[in-house]
Amino acid sequence: MHARDICGISFKWTVIIERVVAQPTRIVAIGRNFVEHVRELNNTVPKEPFFFLKPTTSYLANGGKIEIPRGTIVHHEVELGVVISRTGRDIPSAQADSYVAGYALAIDMTARNVQDDVKKKGLPWTTAKGFDTFTPIGPFIPKSSIADPHNLNLWLKINGQFKQNGTTAAMIVQIPRLIEHVSSIMTLEEGDLILTGTPSGVGPVNAGDTVTVGLAVAESPDMLSELEFL
Amino acid sequence: MHARDICGISFKWTVIIERVVAQPTRIVAIGRNFVEHVRELNNTVPKEPFFFLKPTTSYLANGGKIEIPRGTIVHHEVELGVVISRTGRDIPSAQADSYVAGYALAIDMTARNVQDDVKKKGLPWTTAKGFDTFTPIGPFIPKSSIADPHNLNLWLKINGQFKQNGTTAAMIVQIPRLIEHVSSIMTLEEGDLILTGTPSGVGPVNAGDTVTVGLAVAESPDMLSELEFL
Ligand SMILES: [Mg+2]
Ligand SMILES: [Mg+2]
Ligand SMILES: [Mg+2]
Repeated sequence: MHARDICGISFKWTVIIERVVAQPTRIVAIGRNFVEHVRELNNTVPKEPFFFLKPTTSYLANGGKIEIPRGTIVHHEVELGVVISRTGRDIPSAQADSYVAGYALAIDMTARNVQDDVKKKGLPWTTAKGFDTFTPIGPFIPKSSIADPHNLNLWLKINGQFKQNGTTAAMIVQIPRLIEHVSSIMTLEEGDLILTGTPSGVGPVNAGDTVTVGLAVAESPDMLSELEFL
Repeated sequence: MHARDICGISFKWTVIIERVVAQPTRIVAIGRNFVEHVRELNNTVPKEPFFFLKPTTSYLANGGKIEIPRGTIVHHEVELGVVISRTGRDIPSAQADSYVAGYALAIDMTARNVQDDVKKKGLPWTTAKGFDTFTPIGPFIPKSSIADPHNLNLWLKINGQFKQNGTTAAMIVQIPRLIEHVSSIMTLEEGDLILTGTPSGVGPVNAGDTVTVGLAVAESPDMLSELEFL
């Protein structure tokens, strides 16, 4: 089946990415989970994690073109995605790992000027986060490929220049507690993707830029995922 | 297939409701679309429509039990839902009707104290709107059953007493323009539900209350939908 039938993407998925998005369920995105990123946007560190939903129609597979909607300033936020393996509610953090199928490298694209405006007005973040193509995502990475998801480097370059270069070791709230928190509010389901927050260095993407992102085990020369978007 | 496998509901769907939620895609909820409701919460009428996403795990079928999460004040918002028939992006309002499969009566349950708090802090509305059971919904109503979706009465009673009693004629932004607006941001898909906003009269639901809702063509004695939640 052609991916266009599923979520509006204009080219075929690889077989491997279909494990993440062929039956898209939800994208649950955590906010403010890296101290340096909280500071760069003059925000405060939240007392407990918070999250928002992104529509699955925002998925964009490797090689795709990120849309810059008219009138928006669009920022990149490179993030580690956690793919959920099975249905769960009120999952204790000690059992959270058994609900993880694997991972994926993703970018939480954000219309920053729209977000700044709705934050001031106390309105939902949905539009700022929800345009088509606003969740570029890489192939599914099985859990067995990553011994410790809190020991990964993730980076983002624009036109070959580093803009973000962080480590998942710096997460304020780690993955098991994120799963506990989200599942205390709503049932998690197979195929759900949890974006775990972005390190510092976010900034604008302009039409014509080439955006590359990478994920690797810390101090390893081998990339777990490397993607390019136009 | 038992509905629990799909979205965590603890009893079988009727055949007819499966048309709405057997393949749940998204719930797109419009805010502040009735002037009297905007006023009762001391909000301002938005210059353009805005929306948020609710997780499909919040669906609750007729007869179900609405959860009141600890520490929350949960309000009812009875709303007309529009079910989308096919994929579309940038749908002009003049063509919007051809993307409508039908309708459903729903309640946009809202943890009002959580929402008040996140509005003040400029945070996403997701948690306030997203708990399991926070979208009670009735059977699919085919488009052919409703000549004019802007000529419907919708009401909500608690323990037999009217709390909301409005008409879809009072929508600030009508359905074709809502479809145009949402699809200007993200692709709409078959099975998506657009909640079109609530009339005035919102208020708390307490544990043990019986909540009934109804939808009828104006001045008609025949109900299009009538539901009860505990
Ligand atoms: Mg969904
Ligand atoms: Mg982010
Ligand atoms: Mg509402």
